[in-house]
Amino acid sequence: MRDPEEFNDWYVEIVEKAGLADKRYPIKGMNVWTGYGWKAMRLIDSFIREEFDGTQHQEVCFPLLIPETEFKKEEEHIKGFGSEVYWVTHAGENELDVRLLLRPTSETAMYPIFSLWVRSHADLPLKTYQIVNVFRYETKQTRAFIRMREIHFFESHTCHADFEDAEKQISENLEIMERLAKRLCLPYVMCKRPDWDKFAGAFYTIGFDSLMPTGRTLQMGSIHQYKENFSRPYEIKYEDENGEHQYVHQTTFGMSERILGALVSIHADEKGIILPPDIAPIQVIIVPIYSKEDKDTVNLCCDDLDSKFKEAGIRTHIDDRDLRPGNKFYDWELKGVPLRIEIGSRDIEKDMITAARRDTSERSQLKNNVAVDEVRKLLDNIHKDLHQKVNEEMGKNIHAIDKLSEVKDGINSIFWCGDEECGHQIEDTTGMALLGEPVDKNPSEDNCVVCGKSTDKIIYIARTY
Amino acid sequence: MRDPEEFNDWYVEIVEKAGLADKRYPIKGMNVWTGYGWKAMRLIDSFIREEFDGTQHQEVCFPLLIPETEFKKEEEHIKGFGSEVYWVTHAGENELDVRLLLRPTSETAMYPIFSLWVRSHADLPLKTYQIVNVFRYETKQTRAFIRMREIHFFESHTCHADFEDAEKQISENLEIMERLAKRLCLPYVMCKRPDWDKFAGAFYTIGFDSLMPTGRTLQMGSIHQYKENFSRPYEIKYEDENGEHQYVHQTTFGMSERILGALVSIHADEKGIILPPDIAPIQVIIVPIYSKEDKDTVNLCCDDLDSKFKEAGIRTHIDDRDLRPGNKFYDWELKGVPLRIEIGSRDIEKDMITAARRDTSERSQLKNNVAVDEVRKLLDNIHKDLHQKVNEEMGKNIHAIDKLSEVKDGINSIFWCGDEECGHQIEDTTGMALLGEPVDKNPSEDNCVVCGKSTDKIIYIARTY
Repeated sequence: MRDPEEFNDWYVEIVEKAGLADKRYPIKGMNVWTGYGWKAMRLIDSFIREEFDGTQHQEVCFPLLIPETEFKKEEEHIKGFGSEVYWVTHAGENELDVRLLLRPTSETAMYPIFSLWVRSHADLPLKTYQIVNVFRYETKQTRAFIRMREIHFFESHTCHADFEDAEKQISENLEIMERLAKRLCLPYVMCKRPDWDKFAGAFYTIGFDSLMPTGRTLQMGSIHQYKENFSRPYEIKYEDENGEHQYVHQTTFGMSERILGALVSIHADEKGIILPPDIAPIQVIIVPIYSKEDKDTVNLCCDDLDSKFKEAGIRTHIDDRDLRPGNKFYDWELKGVPLRIEIGSRDIEKDMITAARRDTSERSQLKNNVAVDEVRKLLDNIHKDLHQKVNEEMGKNIHAIDKLSEVKDGINSIFWCGDEECGHQIEDTTGMALLGEPVDKNPSEDNCVVCGKSTDKIIYIARTY
Repeated sequence: MRDPEEFNDWYVEIVEKAGLADKRYPIKGMNVWTGYGWKAMRLIDSFIREEFDGTQHQEVCFPLLIPETEFKKEEEHIKGFGSEVYWVTHAGENELDVRLLLRPTSETAMYPIFSLWVRSHADLPLKTYQIVNVFRYETKQTRAFIRMREIHFFESHTCHADFEDAEKQISENLEIMERLAKRLCLPYVMCKRPDWDKFAGAFYTIGFDSLMPTGRTLQMGSIHQYKENFSRPYEIKYEDENGEHQYVHQTTFGMSERILGALVSIHADEKGIILPPDIAPIQVIIVPIYSKEDKDTVNLCCDDLDSKFKEAGIRTHIDDRDLRPGNKFYDWELKGVPLRIEIGSRDIEKDMITAARRDTSERSQLKNNVAVDEVRKLLDNIHKDLHQKVNEEMGKNIHAIDKLSEVKDGINSIFWCGDEECGHQIEDTTGMALLGEPVDKNPSEDNCVVCGKSTDKIIYIARTY
């Protein structure tokens, strides 16, 4: 496990050096998305969209500003967010009659409108999502992608006829997360958070945590069952088949740019980051190796290959800067490009190209005439190997322990009676936080590590970000 | 020409009925993008991205909030926007030391960072763009897509070594606009705005205006040459080949959701809107025509066809609601779906389907086994015909006149000496505004309509939104 301070320094430096974000913007906690970082984020977004469009969610876009009066309708929610919202109080020269806040999340923007959209059982389920910027006035130290004050955010919001149908949505969301994580090469555990750590206003919360190289977990997203907690204050009701008015049951699913932060942290080595092929803005970097004499021949061959790759939908770039090949290798390794192609005169004579994998440093010679197919195979293999590697790494760091004195770095799995007092004692003794009950645990039984009561509840604990 | 008030009422109603936006959000001038409207907007965005990615612009994303101190660096700019910005003054319980404003446009967010990104001539040209939400505290009456307080906005920002290179960018932008307008079936004129009507801080401004059915023009976008007007206060300098420091020359290109507003206004008839196929969320609506007996057979045939269309990348939807076909026709005509396919038992027996064009109401029988190709052809024809029709309509309403007393509804083309006083007199006499000199006019000469001085300057005037 890496030392948290050393890791933090490395992370701050690598995000900047790899050109993923520029943190020199004159407001703390608000970074500039550079072309490279934004492209990676937009690729992540495209997979999210694919998943939610494919499961009959409608993409919508609600206003950023929320009137204070709407925001204050749900008590728990305001308690959870009230201290971290930004307030718009003036417009032009005027003081506003009702203060407006920048959305920290969109429940209170959406639900007054949902109450107009939902009229009858035929309008249900209502399944929507949006990808927007949200704002939270963080007081802790900010860090690119991981703890920001302006956050690139995904949120789905659904309304259902009853609790059971809402539960089905939660199951669908879990499946979506599984497919997404596979696509993104993202290892995770999902836990039902303890009651005192659920989302402000939720009936229950399932969190997705990834394990960072320091042994601490990072929450990347969460799924919430709201039951009728919001539909009552916002009066989201429908007429059922018997003509009676019922409150809808609601769910949400939230994810953020933290996914990119986790990927950058997890897929890395001493040379820099290693981007999984699907989210790499440049999947293949082509480096011409030439002398003065054969420059034109080599460049022509590079251009030709580049066009072929682009036609096949592979994201390529030719590095034709006036630098030594070694310097170019260094730059693209740092920036995490999954595959490098080198082309020199000797390769051209043999009608071959040289490929070097970013993750394993493995080099291979490919026939130029089948380069597209071979590169596609290599990218697939990189994807599979990266995914397997990080999943194994995560698996190795989930420890089943019997006594609190045995806690190790990483995630610890213990038996717990479910009692809040025992829960707090676990946290106090270990200095770790309760992530919650793993959603996909195997049924078993043992004694609570604190009180010794027999229980079938397993709980994950870890140091968290 | 339509009566402005009648048109306004129609527009407000059609936007709502077609389900493009929901204006019941509890803040004036901030609407909810519904699934249908947002999809159309995102399709427009995708063509914009295609154009700017294809011309080596990098998509970036800058923070929404701008410190007051940065905003105030360029005097003209603050004069232009100062009265219409939203101010964030508090966060949580704290009053902020420096007030933050919601971007009305991003010059003052980007340029402090551009001064860090641009160091040497090798960093130029710097070509960036972003698609974001911007905020303007409009005091005039708001209207969906056309005059909003939260605006879905496109902005490109470029830096160049000198004025000439910046001028080349302006030319590229004009070409981009031409291609985009063709794709979107959007008629427009482009005019260099008179000096007193240019963008706050610009050296010159070219505006894109479309003609609305009322005879008034609507500005949909604008291109600006900034020269060194911003690079000096923001100190965006580079070292040239001789080791000397030079200020960059800058350009911007702005467009907004007004494009959708213009399209909805221009492509419409008494049945509703007519969406150009490329931006239609649903390009083909399939309506099954069945009785109780043949329902299953017909539905099966519809499903089969729907899959084939979707595989071919055509956006289709089957309307299987429990309604009469006539009611379904009515709904989808109102929402502007360019093509309707009807399938009944009689069609199935003949292995045919019936297609009905939204724009011409023309019906045709297509062989089922070549339906995909035939539908693609029909969509292409709809696109071409719509584009031609609205371009002709616009052309018919540009009137070359000799005397101010002859002004007609629409755009009037007159000769003007270029003198500001004569310009204001034109506006006062006609009640119209000067759009500016058309960018692509033919060279000719005549006398200024006001002072009679000989001139080769043509100017467009019109009532504007």
